[in-house]
Amino acid sequence: MEPRVPSLDLVERVCAGERRAIARMLSRAEAGGPEAREALDRLYRRAGRAHVVGITGVPGSGKSTLVAKLAAAVLKTGRKIGIIAVDPSSPFSGGSILGDRIRMGEVAGHPSVFVRSMATRGALGGLARGTLEAVDILDAAGYDMIIIETVGVGQDEVDVVRAAHTTVVVSAPGLGDDIQAIKAGILEIADVHAVSKGDRPEADKTISDLKGMLGLGLSLPGPSQRALPVIKTSAFKDEGIAELAHAIDAHRAHQLASGEYGQRRQAIRERRMLKAAEQILHDEFERHRQGRMAPVIAELAAGRISPQAAARKLLLHIRTEVSG
Amino acid sequence: MEPRVPSLDLVERVCAGERRAIARMLSRAEAGGPEAREALDRLYRRAGRAHVVGITGVPGSGKSTLVAKLAAAVLKTGRKIGIIAVDPSSPFSGGSILGDRIRMGEVAGHPSVFVRSMATRGALGGLARGTLEAVDILDAAGYDMIIIETVGVGQDEVDVVRAAHTTVVVSAPGLGDDIQAIKAGILEIADVHAVSKGDRPEADKTISDLKGMLGLGLSLPGPSQRALPVIKTSAFKDEGIAELAHAIDAHRAHQLASGEYGQRRQAIRERRMLKAAEQILHDEFERHRQGRMAPVIAELAAGRISPQAAARKLLLHIRTEVSG
Repeated sequence: MEPRVPSLDLVERVCAGERRAIARMLSRAEAGGPEAREALDRLYRRAGRAHVVGITGVPGSGKSTLVAKLAAAVLKTGRKIGIIAVDPSSPFSGGSILGDRIRMGEVAGHPSVFVRSMATRGALGGLARGTLEAVDILDAAGYDMIIIETVGVGQDEVDVVRAAHTTVVVSAPGLGDDIQAIKAGILEIADVHAVSKGDRPEADKTISDLKGMLGLGLSLPGPSQRALPVIKTSAFKDEGIAELAHAIDAHRAHQLASGEYGQRRQAIRERRMLKAAEQILHDEFERHRQGRMAPVIAELAAGRISPQAAARKLLLHIRTEVSG
Repeated sequence: MEPRVPSLDLVERVCAGERRAIARMLSRAEAGGPEAREALDRLYRRAGRAHVVGITGVPGSGKSTLVAKLAAAVLKTGRKIGIIAVDPSSPFSGGSILGDRIRMGEVAGHPSVFVRSMATRGALGGLARGTLEAVDILDAAGYDMIIIETVGVGQDEVDVVRAAHTTVVVSAPGLGDDIQAIKAGILEIADVHAVSKGDRPEADKTISDLKGMLGLGLSLPGPSQRALPVIKTSAFKDEGIAELAHAIDAHRAHQLASGEYGQRRQAIRERRMLKAAEQILHDEFERHRQGRMAPVIAELAAGRISPQAAARKLLLHIRTEVSG
């Protein structure tokens, strides 16, 4: 059996970029507990330099292949890359067939790449929290760009994408109208649009449709009225990948120069704080179900108080716990 | 100008089933404020008899037409029906073209039917809360069955559907694989499956695919291992509508007889309480942004504390407010 390494040492080893320490810290973070919590708090304070890029698109949009190609392009600039796959259908998430592994190409196993997959099922908001903790760990470990790959559907996934500094939405030719309607919500949070499978004849129509939707105000440019880039890519022909990498870097440069980066980072921090507070609320309620919450639950069950009134009682009980 | 009616009188008039009072109470609930809050608390304690039915399906699944046909069938049993349309593309939500109005058929304008549409955009969880408050109002007003029509995508929509006593998931023939993948999440919460457009030749394949997915454990029967009904419907040919109405009633009867109804109602109440507590948390944070929350925000902005640590500080500040 492996000897148990104290978390304090582990934090230093993570910050030194040791792969085994990173893997162990990621597992400890997933397992949870006060010691992991303390280590994560320390790592959080050492993080903050990475460029976090969210890449989202519905299943079948070809985003996994695009992520592999993009990572290969960024590697050439000498940067270290972390990839966190939230999409269970992604080849990066490990359960992939051999063909998918091959699609990952030069990225798989590269010494400057660290790949981690996240389970998409779990407690409320657990996915978002787990993913962002993994980002913090890779960030503190010195990875320059951290790519989060996720399907663009579901509140958890949207929370993850909204925590990225740059969000890329991947659209593919040949998906139906229904799927486009579902995607409309996610289009609004894009900083860069990528159209995949650009070698297909329908790709130009997808691009013009997308530009049409953007022009109709379905996706407004940010506060600085910067036009949203729409980039045609073909992983098959290796076209548009460098342009995509450039657009992602340009977005960060623009954010830093305009001061929007600081605002966005603070908004992300505040959202994470509120999510964490919600989680504490849920945990405390479950923990005290048989105890101090029992009278509130009984009143609720009898229909004597509304859920709104019960919520105020719940918050009264929580405080004692937090301060105690 | 209309004289301002005190909320206390309004509550009694709502409970007497007065349509104008119901409409006014729905508007006041949407506007919010302490007086509306108090009225809603009183109405909540007068509610609890209605059968709340969630009907969900992706855009294009034909669920609006099915809701109209279902409502017409239930009306024939002498019950009063409330319809709350959360889907912005629904003809019930009012922004519909003439053709859609005609599709609503005998249901539109019927004296035993009350239709209300909800905006789908707004604050965090605002849609779910607003929808469930509208359910409480119609419930207290004596509506026997309250149908919530919603698209099955997005956390808010899922929250709404999970607050129903009986959930119907509508599948349609001819939607692609991608959309089915997205729907997989919502399939799990179905109590009854309806396949729309049963007159189409592909409908039987949709039914066998669906049964295949259910058989594969993608959607497990409830605690009592009751088999999930899969009902083929055709609004066009008026087929399968009575069977669907029967399956919905049978689900309620089964829930009441097995005791599952009480468990489910309590689970709904607890989820609503937790959601309400989350909302208070967000509101209090925003309200005290410049005040007592300012030091926490500053530490967060400086990267000196993690979002998790900030969350505990936030909860300390909230309590003072709730108890004060």
